[in-house]
Amino acid sequence: MNSRNLQHLLDQKTKPIGSLGHLEELAVRVATVTGETRPERLRPSLTIFAADHGIAEEGVSAFPQEVTGQMVSNFLTKGAAANAIAGELGIPVSVVDCGVKGVLVNEDGLIDMRLGPGTSNSTQGPAMTQEIAASAISRGRSYGQSLTTNIACFGEMGIANTSSATLLAHKLSGILIADLVGRGTGVDDAGLTHKQSVLEGAAARTGMLEPMDALAEVGGFEIGIMAGAMIGAAASKKVVVVDGFIATAASALARAIDPDSEASMVYAHQSAEHGHTALLEWLEAKPLLDLQMRLGEGTGALLVVPIIRASVSLFGMASFADAGVSGRSNDT
Amino acid sequence: MNSRNLQHLLDQKTKPIGSLGHLEELAVRVATVTGETRPERLRPSLTIFAADHGIAEEGVSAFPQEVTGQMVSNFLTKGAAANAIAGELGIPVSVVDCGVKGVLVNEDGLIDMRLGPGTSNSTQGPAMTQEIAASAISRGRSYGQSLTTNIACFGEMGIANTSSATLLAHKLSGILIADLVGRGTGVDDAGLTHKQSVLEGAAARTGMLEPMDALAEVGGFEIGIMAGAMIGAAASKKVVVVDGFIATAASALARAIDPDSEASMVYAHQSAEHGHTALLEWLEAKPLLDLQMRLGEGTGALLVVPIIRASVSLFGMASFADAGVSGRSNDT
Repeated sequence: MNSRNLQHLLDQKTKPIGSLGHLEELAVRVATVTGETRPERLRPSLTIFAADHGIAEEGVSAFPQEVTGQMVSNFLTKGAAANAIAGELGIPVSVVDCGVKGVLVNEDGLIDMRLGPGTSNSTQGPAMTQEIAASAISRGRSYGQSLTTNIACFGEMGIANTSSATLLAHKLSGILIADLVGRGTGVDDAGLTHKQSVLEGAAARTGMLEPMDALAEVGGFEIGIMAGAMIGAAASKKVVVVDGFIATAASALARAIDPDSEASMVYAHQSAEHGHTALLEWLEAKPLLDLQMRLGEGTGALLVVPIIRASVSLFGMASFADAGVSGRSNDT
Repeated sequence: MNSRNLQHLLDQKTKPIGSLGHLEELAVRVATVTGETRPERLRPSLTIFAADHGIAEEGVSAFPQEVTGQMVSNFLTKGAAANAIAGELGIPVSVVDCGVKGVLVNEDGLIDMRLGPGTSNSTQGPAMTQEIAASAISRGRSYGQSLTTNIACFGEMGIANTSSATLLAHKLSGILIADLVGRGTGVDDAGLTHKQSVLEGAAARTGMLEPMDALAEVGGFEIGIMAGAMIGAAASKKVVVVDGFIATAASALARAIDPDSEASMVYAHQSAEHGHTALLEWLEAKPLLDLQMRLGEGTGALLVVPIIRASVSLFGMASFADAGVSGRSNDT
């Protein structure tokens, strides 16, 4: 059914027309993408993509780089915020090593898509080769297509990845670094000034870039693989639930590579990370929630899943005719 | 545990301090009120309070008055939006007849708290007697105390009840009718002008009023009983999830009668009903969601329940020490 017919269905239900606002728009979008109007047929999942960033050596994060790998272990032993929330909401979690520093940790349940032991420092040269960038998109696309779930939440972990996401968003959109850079995990004022200066230096290495060149130059293994996964999931009729600032940068890359992917995307929440507002505006994307969260890991995407389920449940409501409820009086 | 100790617990968990924003504040509030830090011990429920309003005869609603009773039947046969969403989220629904026009419909599952066959027309005189107003609060309080659930969502149904809620909010707060009146179920521009004029006429019958006098003068059987239920639920360590404009007016009445009840209240969503913004500001209440909904029935409150569960799940996260994750570097 197309979106007009789906909205018409909702308009027959026992409620004033349009009175459920964005919940109705969400129901129509999810049903249009997935073809499902029964919430029990929605199968959500969360994938967390993790990688390290060479630019971390510039001191742009409040946390040391080893935290990326430590958090991967924490995800696998279900100790992180994303695990707690996903567990409570009944959403399975997968963890993908896209290139954490060091070597692959041979842990049960970790999916290996390693592209290297972290990216190179993008203040000095490209974060990765063109070949690796192409491989990131293609591995991600296969992953997104192969998912057996139809509500695909994507999250990330990677110390310094707000820096890579800021650079990528800047190269794709032209938004000033100053309007995109933020505190990430929580750098202080001096740290923020330093981070902005580092990122402006890295940005000055090149002009505006085509999407694949931007990925190669400023990187993010997990950002590239996530963008590919978004393209693959969208192409296979899955809803893509976009988390916060870094996932939104990945969605900008996905949409630049495959504009059709936009129709499948649901932006979960307005992050407290400074640059998210400007990036969302540039994408003309309106997120559903604003809870002043700035953690990543897909935590914002997870919170939207029950709202998606609730929205699709509206297709099961009684119509005015079914329920014998009177319609509107003539307006005065 | 008090709220400071609970926040301290969250601050040890494997995430940057404060990075889950309002979700952390919510976790602390819910755990402080209920004493529970395990989400499986949270037991949500929705109660929909229904009644008719004499002021409906002034033509202030887009729908005819018989819709109140018809929707009560629709709730009992699980056809309404609140049923669809509650069913999907696994939340039991109770329906209370607070005084629907006509006589009690003897339907299975309907709870009888009838205070009469609808209120009197408050443009002409008091909506109810002082005795009935006192009875509304006391019946509601007993109901709220007797609930065996600890996350109490309260919703309502009553043709013309945005009119009663507007008058009540005006009498309690002094906010101008013009800043509180809205389209309700969807009156057109002429209807809105008429509604405002009717409400200003009704308001002019009296000056500012004490809380119980305000309830008696401008009424709402379901608003009074809901306010009582909020007081009773709060007094018995339940979280009160406040829905939209009408429930917020009930919460204003509850807080005016029992200021301690405020600590238990979670404001679910910013309604699209015009007056909600001004009323929330006056109450210094910040709702969690803004999905441009304006249906009532507790639909907004229901959507917050999974977010409450998710918030409390954070107490189960690993700490930095548990997980062997490094803390912050020294800031630059």
